[in-house]
Amino acid sequence: MPDILIRRGIVVPMTERRILKEASIAIREGRIAAVGPDSVVRREYPSDIEIDAADHIVIPGLINTHTHLAMTLFRGVMDGVSGMEWLNRAWSIESNLTREDVYWGSLLGCLEMIKGGTTCFADHYFFMDAVVDAVKESCIRAALAQAIIEEGGPRGIDTTLEGSLNFAKQYDGEAKGRITCMLGPHSAYTCSPNLLKEVRRLSEETGLRAHIHLSEGMSELRIVKEKYETTPIRLLNRIGLLNPKLLAAHVVFADEEEIELLKEKDVKVNHNPICKMKGGHGASPVAKMLKKGINVSLGTDGVGSNNNLDLLEEMKFAALLQPLVERDPKAISAWDVLEMATINGARALGIEKDVGSIEVGKKADLVIIRRKVPHMVPLHNIPSLLVYSANGNDVDTVIVDGKIVMSKRKVLTIDEEVVMKRAQRVFEKLLERSGWEPIMEGIPEKI
Amino acid sequence: MPDILIRRGIVVPMTERRILKEASIAIREGRIAAVGPDSVVRREYPSDIEIDAADHIVIPGLINTHTHLAMTLFRGVMDGVSGMEWLNRAWSIESNLTREDVYWGSLLGCLEMIKGGTTCFADHYFFMDAVVDAVKESCIRAALAQAIIEEGGPRGIDTTLEGSLNFAKQYDGEAKGRITCMLGPHSAYTCSPNLLKEVRRLSEETGLRAHIHLSEGMSELRIVKEKYETTPIRLLNRIGLLNPKLLAAHVVFADEEEIELLKEKDVKVNHNPICKMKGGHGASPVAKMLKKGINVSLGTDGVGSNNNLDLLEEMKFAALLQPLVERDPKAISAWDVLEMATINGARALGIEKDVGSIEVGKKADLVIIRRKVPHMVPLHNIPSLLVYSANGNDVDTVIVDGKIVMSKRKVLTIDEEVVMKRAQRVFEKLLERSGWEPIMEGIPEKI
Repeated sequence: MPDILIRRGIVVPMTERRILKEASIAIREGRIAAVGPDSVVRREYPSDIEIDAADHIVIPGLINTHTHLAMTLFRGVMDGVSGMEWLNRAWSIESNLTREDVYWGSLLGCLEMIKGGTTCFADHYFFMDAVVDAVKESCIRAALAQAIIEEGGPRGIDTTLEGSLNFAKQYDGEAKGRITCMLGPHSAYTCSPNLLKEVRRLSEETGLRAHIHLSEGMSELRIVKEKYETTPIRLLNRIGLLNPKLLAAHVVFADEEEIELLKEKDVKVNHNPICKMKGGHGASPVAKMLKKGINVSLGTDGVGSNNNLDLLEEMKFAALLQPLVERDPKAISAWDVLEMATINGARALGIEKDVGSIEVGKKADLVIIRRKVPHMVPLHNIPSLLVYSANGNDVDTVIVDGKIVMSKRKVLTIDEEVVMKRAQRVFEKLLERSGWEPIMEGIPEKI
Repeated sequence: MPDILIRRGIVVPMTERRILKEASIAIREGRIAAVGPDSVVRREYPSDIEIDAADHIVIPGLINTHTHLAMTLFRGVMDGVSGMEWLNRAWSIESNLTREDVYWGSLLGCLEMIKGGTTCFADHYFFMDAVVDAVKESCIRAALAQAIIEEGGPRGIDTTLEGSLNFAKQYDGEAKGRITCMLGPHSAYTCSPNLLKEVRRLSEETGLRAHIHLSEGMSELRIVKEKYETTPIRLLNRIGLLNPKLLAAHVVFADEEEIELLKEKDVKVNHNPICKMKGGHGASPVAKMLKKGINVSLGTDGVGSNNNLDLLEEMKFAALLQPLVERDPKAISAWDVLEMATINGARALGIEKDVGSIEVGKKADLVIIRRKVPHMVPLHNIPSLLVYSANGNDVDTVIVDGKIVMSKRKVLTIDEEVVMKRAQRVFEKLLERSGWEPIMEGIPEKI
C-alpha cells in the first residue's frame, strides 16, 4: 500500500467546526498519520504519491446511510408515484430481479457514489452477496443488510429473517473490514411484532445493528394504526427495538413524545429529504431532532425515488428543507448538514472510531473537491460553499481505506464504460422480463 | 459566422412533449435552419463545424428569469438571514458597490451561467451598463432592468425611475439584439403607488416590460397591509400594473382570488424555489398557477440568496417542492419543469418568437448535455434524467445566437482564470470598504 501525501489543501476535518488552511495530510498503511502544515508533514512523511490539493477542499468521505443500491437501475422508472403504490410497483419489478441485475445495478451505484464523493453507504436490499462483490471490486466501504419482509415484498426472493442473519454473519468484516453487516427488518408494516422481537433478540445476542424504515409515509401510519392501534415509533418502543443499534430510515412523522423517545433510546435517525419531497410524504422534523441531540445522518434513498446518489446535492436539500418547514432561516446550519453527511453517518453505522472525520489514527476515507470553478468563487465561507454551492461533479479525487479509487474524476477500480453499458443492458432485459410498463413519457423515438 | 451541424443527438425540442432520437440540427447565420434525421440534414446542410452529439442530449438554452447577477460576488455572505434583515444587509454592502464590482460580479455570473447551460437571464440591479459590458463580452443573452427604489435601497447609487427608463431606452436591442431592456420597479413596499403608476404609464408608452419583486415575504405583506390595507398583488391590480408585460418575481403568497387575477391579467410569474426555501419564506403555489394556465418561469435569484446559478439544480427543487406542499407526487411533472426553464422563460421576457425552443427559424440558443455519465444511466426517461438526475456540471457545449460560447466545458468567450481571480479580489475589497462583518463561520485560518 503506497504512502500518500495530500498537500496544501483547505481541510475540513469535522472533528470540530473549524477550517485548516494550507494543511497537508499524510497517509500510512491506509490510515491518517498526520495532519498539519505542509513544511512539517512533508519533511516527516516523505511519500510515494503526492497529491497537490492547493486548489481544493479536503473533506472526510461522505457517508450515505440509506439506499437500495441495485435500484440505481430504476432511475426514472417511478416518478410521480408514492406510498404503497410506489412499493407495489417496485416489488412487481423486483420479483423479476436476478443476482446479475443486483450485481450490475450495485456496481453502477458504487461508480456513481465514488464519482460524487461518497466513500461509504448503508444498503438494505436483496441478493446482498452480489452487493458484496460490487463493494469489493469498486473498493468502496459499506454497511449491508439483507431485507426481511414478511408481508408483501417481491416474490421468489429470500426475504427471511434467517437469510438476513446468515448473510450478516457470513460477510461482517469482509473486504479487509470495509464491509460491516446489519439485520434488515423492512418496516413495522411489513414485519410482525413477533418477528421484530426476534430481530431485537438476535441483535442483542450477536451485536449486529438493525436497519429499518420507520414512520416514512401516511400509508404506513394507517396500516400500523389499524393493526396495532398505535404509531410505528411507539410500536417499536413497545417491542424494545428502539435502541442505540437501530438505524431508522426516514422518520418523517414524529411528535414531541416520539422525538423524546428516539433521543432517550439513542436511535440513529437517517434523513432522506429528496425522496420524501418527491413522493409528497412530508418533511422530517430534523431541526427539532438535532436540537434534542439525536444523531441524524443523511441518505439519498434508492434511485427509484431520488433519482441520483449525489450526497452533495442531498446536503443542499437537507439545508433548505428545515428553514422552509420551520419558517426560520436559522433552523439548521451548513455545519449541521456537513456533520450529518460525515461524522453522524459514521456514528449511525457504528464505525465512528474508524471513519467520519479527518483525524490521526482514523482510516483514510477522504474526498478532494475542486474549488477553482466559477460556482465556488469567491472563496471565504467553506461550509457554505460545500453545502449550498457544490455538487457531486465537483469531486476530483476520492480515497477509501487509504487507496485512491478516483483521481481527477477517473475511477481507477472499475471500468466506467463497461459498468454503464452492462447496467443499461440488464435494465432493459429486467423491464422486458417484468412485462412492466414504466412511466416513460420521454422514451426516445425515431423522428 | 460559421455554419454549424450538431449531429445525432437526443433532441428535446420543447415545441411539444416529445423526444427526437438521433436528430441533427443545422445552424445558418445564427438561426436553426433544420432539425431532422442525420442523413437528410447532413446532406442538405454541409457545415464548417460538426459537433458529435451521439452521447448527448440537446435542449434549448435555459432561461433564468430572475437574478441579480453582480450579487454572484455575495456567495456565502448572507446565509441564515431572511426578509428585511437580509435586504438591509444587502443594501449596506451595496452602498459601497462600484461599477467595477458590478462588472466583475456580473462577468463571474455570466461565466457560471454559461457553464451550467443558461443562455439567457433577466437581471434586476444597479450600474446596469456594467452588466451590458459583461453580456457583450461573454456573448450571453439578457433582459436587463435597472432597479427603481424609492424607500430604503443602497446609498449613493442611481435607483431612480428616470435612470431606469434612460438605461432601458439606451440599451434595448444592443449586442446584436441579444440584450432587451425592462423597467425595474423593486417592489410594492419600496416604491410608492404614484411611482408604480408612472411605471405603468411609461410601460404603455414605450412598450417596455417591467420586472418587479411581488409577494415574496411576510415583511412585505406586513408593510403593504399597514400602508395600503391590502395585499401586494391587489395593490398592483389597483394601480393597473398587473398586465401581460409584467414579470413578477417570487409570488410566494397568493390566494385563489389573486391567482385568478394573475391569470386574468396574463402576468408572467417567476419562481425561485431555492431562495424562498432557504430564507424560510414559503413555497409559491406553482402547481395551482400552472393548472390555471399562468406562465410560470424559473429563476435562481441572486447568489446572495441561492448560492449558485445552476438552473438544472433549480429544476429539481422546483420539481420536488410542489409534491411536498401539495402532498401529491403528481403535483408537477418533469415536462412542466422543463417548460418553465425554457419556453415559459422566453414568454416571460417577450422573446418567445426567437428563443425558448428548438424550431426552424428560431435563434440558435442550444445546450448539449452529457448523458454517458453514471448518474444518467440507464437511459430511457429523458425529461426525468434532465430534471431529477442532472446538474449544471453535466453541460458540455453551449451555443448562444449561433455562436459556440462553451465547448467541452471550456468557455471560449472570456478567460475563466482571469474572471475568477478578479472577482475574488473585488469581493475582498468590497467587504473591506463596507466595514462589514459577513457570516464567515468557515473563514480559513492557519493551523
